[in-house]
Amino acid sequence: MNELDSIFYPDNVALVGSMKKGKIGYEVLKNILDHRFDERGNIYPVNPKGGEVLGLEIRESLEEVPELDLSVIASPAKYVPSLIEGSGNMGAKGAVIISSGFGEIGNKELEEEVLKKAQKNDIRVIGPNCAGIFSTHHDLYASFELPVGEGGLAFITQSGAFGGAALGWAKVRDIGFSSFVSYGNALDLNEIDFIKYFSEDENTEIIGVYLEGTVDGRELMKVIKNTNKPVIVIKSGKSSRGSEAVSSHTGSLAGSYKVYNTAFKQAGAVEVEGIEEFFDAVKASKVGINSAGKNVAVITNSGGPGIMCTDKIESLGLNVVEITQKTREELKDFLPEQSSVKNPVDIIADADYERYKKTIETVDKDDKVDSMIILCVPPGYIPSKDIARSIIDANYEKPLIANFMSGELVEDGLKLLNKNDIPNFPTPERAAKGVFWISNQKSNIK
Amino acid sequence: MNELDSIFYPDNVALVGSMKKGKIGYEVLKNILDHRFDERGNIYPVNPKGGEVLGLEIRESLEEVPELDLSVIASPAKYVPSLIEGSGNMGAKGAVIISSGFGEIGNKELEEEVLKKAQKNDIRVIGPNCAGIFSTHHDLYASFELPVGEGGLAFITQSGAFGGAALGWAKVRDIGFSSFVSYGNALDLNEIDFIKYFSEDENTEIIGVYLEGTVDGRELMKVIKNTNKPVIVIKSGKSSRGSEAVSSHTGSLAGSYKVYNTAFKQAGAVEVEGIEEFFDAVKASKVGINSAGKNVAVITNSGGPGIMCTDKIESLGLNVVEITQKTREELKDFLPEQSSVKNPVDIIADADYERYKKTIETVDKDDKVDSMIILCVPPGYIPSKDIARSIIDANYEKPLIANFMSGELVEDGLKLLNKNDIPNFPTPERAAKGVFWISNQKSNIK
Repeated sequence: MNELDSIFYPDNVALVGSMKKGKIGYEVLKNILDHRFDERGNIYPVNPKGGEVLGLEIRESLEEVPELDLSVIASPAKYVPSLIEGSGNMGAKGAVIISSGFGEIGNKELEEEVLKKAQKNDIRVIGPNCAGIFSTHHDLYASFELPVGEGGLAFITQSGAFGGAALGWAKVRDIGFSSFVSYGNALDLNEIDFIKYFSEDENTEIIGVYLEGTVDGRELMKVIKNTNKPVIVIKSGKSSRGSEAVSSHTGSLAGSYKVYNTAFKQAGAVEVEGIEEFFDAVKASKVGINSAGKNVAVITNSGGPGIMCTDKIESLGLNVVEITQKTREELKDFLPEQSSVKNPVDIIADADYERYKKTIETVDKDDKVDSMIILCVPPGYIPSKDIARSIIDANYEKPLIANFMSGELVEDGLKLLNKNDIPNFPTPERAAKGVFWISNQKSNIK
Repeated sequence: MNELDSIFYPDNVALVGSMKKGKIGYEVLKNILDHRFDERGNIYPVNPKGGEVLGLEIRESLEEVPELDLSVIASPAKYVPSLIEGSGNMGAKGAVIISSGFGEIGNKELEEEVLKKAQKNDIRVIGPNCAGIFSTHHDLYASFELPVGEGGLAFITQSGAFGGAALGWAKVRDIGFSSFVSYGNALDLNEIDFIKYFSEDENTEIIGVYLEGTVDGRELMKVIKNTNKPVIVIKSGKSSRGSEAVSSHTGSLAGSYKVYNTAFKQAGAVEVEGIEEFFDAVKASKVGINSAGKNVAVITNSGGPGIMCTDKIESLGLNVVEITQKTREELKDFLPEQSSVKNPVDIIADADYERYKKTIETVDKDDKVDSMIILCVPPGYIPSKDIARSIIDANYEKPLIANFMSGELVEDGLKLLNKNDIPNFPTPERAAKGVFWISNQKSNIK
């Protein structure tokens, strides 16, 4: 039993705030009820005005709540200290404070008061000034943000707005989450606590962090190093101008980016740039972060994209490795004459199920090769799902990433790849970035 | 009258090849008829077997075609020299040779024979070993590739497969083309001729080129320099390994990338990496390639994305410029207290139509600012189309690029932006790249 379990896996939740439609309290309650948390635990809306909301009785105070593990607070800032005290009296061990009006507008004193009350009552706090949390496997959607489906990604974000944008991005791409945590002013709990917690959380397979700064770089790197789950980080405030903006945005210091960058590599975290790369790296992690060496083989049915992929791989400091003479001989045995058995291996336009499958299996056995990228621009007469099927059926051991181009022609193939958890990207460049992330970052320290 | 008009704007077209369903000749004919070229000019299918296809008489030889401007040839390679001769006899001035089996498989002699016949008969040739052409404003879809809609982009590609992928990519994103040219082995016409031609073509607004190598770098840069239309280039074969692959793929030399890179900048071309950046740059070009200086203002309603955008702008060698004291005072007059009037200008989460509009107009007047990026992560209660409308209605003069995040929440806003030709990108990083492309590339020579 971890003390944060009362936040992410509570049985009894109080939600304090305005229960008028359109207000944050109401919207959070709606999210919670839409996901049927009430069938798993108890949700108690609390507001001094009492009454009813969405079929539930509104308790006039926390004292009326029969049992309590977690308080979610969306009331005006000035009431928050006494609400924390009240939560403690009823046995709560956690609080998510969505309310704003604290440190972010210079109201540090009120924030300190909240912290004191929390410490006195043994309550761990997320926020204030945050967007709330999701714990999808526990059906707890304690946030006004767009709900997303269940999955293995725990996403921790210092920026509520960026968190919201990430959820929107993930939703249209059908990416599943174990948790979403927006931690706002980080009065008590911060990214270090959450990374530690999700390292142990059985529903979390991969940890994502959006970070502007940290209070304890050494500890942050330690918890990243200690987890055996992949950690993907977006560090914001990298430029000097961006770092200034961090100060005026959160009041925290962004710190020297170079230090972060090196430390992330040493700790084994994968650092990405922005939301698109973040979710690409999440995809790539399916075949193992830090799992491969630098030597990549490219298998393609079209020259141009093969060259573009080669350019990108080399520009990332990886190698489009020379494959062995033995492999080349074996490839020559079954490939058409116009093929190129050098890496990139070009198995030409009319490559079908059998040709792809045999090539993948042959290249996989080459000792010089650490990972493979499979490119396909299917001609109209070869269904992309045949090529997808060849990858799925092939007998191989090394990490493999696919790039099928483009548009409607490859839709069926992509569906099959997704269903079989084979990471695939829409361009040769993004596929190359994919093998970069699965290659050992520690060996990439410059 | 340009001599290439008989290729891109012919009245009478012969299509020579197999007219059996599934064969290239048939598929090209179908594309041509699907787009009703027969209502604008004459299309004559030709095959020695005669008969009928898709309601048209098949002529048994080119001699039976009453009038001829362009021959599109998809017959076996060995027949091509005599078909060129035959086309010349009937008055054709252009030929598109889709057939393969020439230089790309070592059959240089046959290729030379084709060139001689073409020169003797004053025929300009595209191909051989190419995917054909589209001339959308002339309803001519003389290719087996996926047809795309009318627009201002002429796309010239050395790789047929990459060309096909680009068309598929463009189709799902509703991007319009004036022309598509796959020129294969470049026996006669090459990228230099096409850039020159599309510079004068009244239906072309922007020229895109996928290039592995060129036969005449000096001339290539000259035609790019001489056009007053934006030229966007993807150069493939940049790494040493990629350059080797170019040699084995097309037999041409990729040349030193550094030379290309500098020459493109000097000539005023925008060089991009891959298909995603290519179409992003096409979008950005709506507000003018090479039109702006390096000083960018960022206007955002959320801190995190504002910082990410700032980081990217600075990493591209542009400046998130310090705005003037005067502008800051003006902003302070109407923005809420928690806003930041420094650049990035953070107008906070609840920024609505009026606040965005007034901020854009105020920042636009700042002499230090060359271009603007408008970021928006709309909270649930502010419709994204209100923010889109504020940009459309605002009175401003400087180039402006938008980034609305994310997913379903911004769909309505994006539709409005697209309808009004306001370049918009799905991430702050890609928006930053957008201002990079519109900033003067010549000033970016390192």
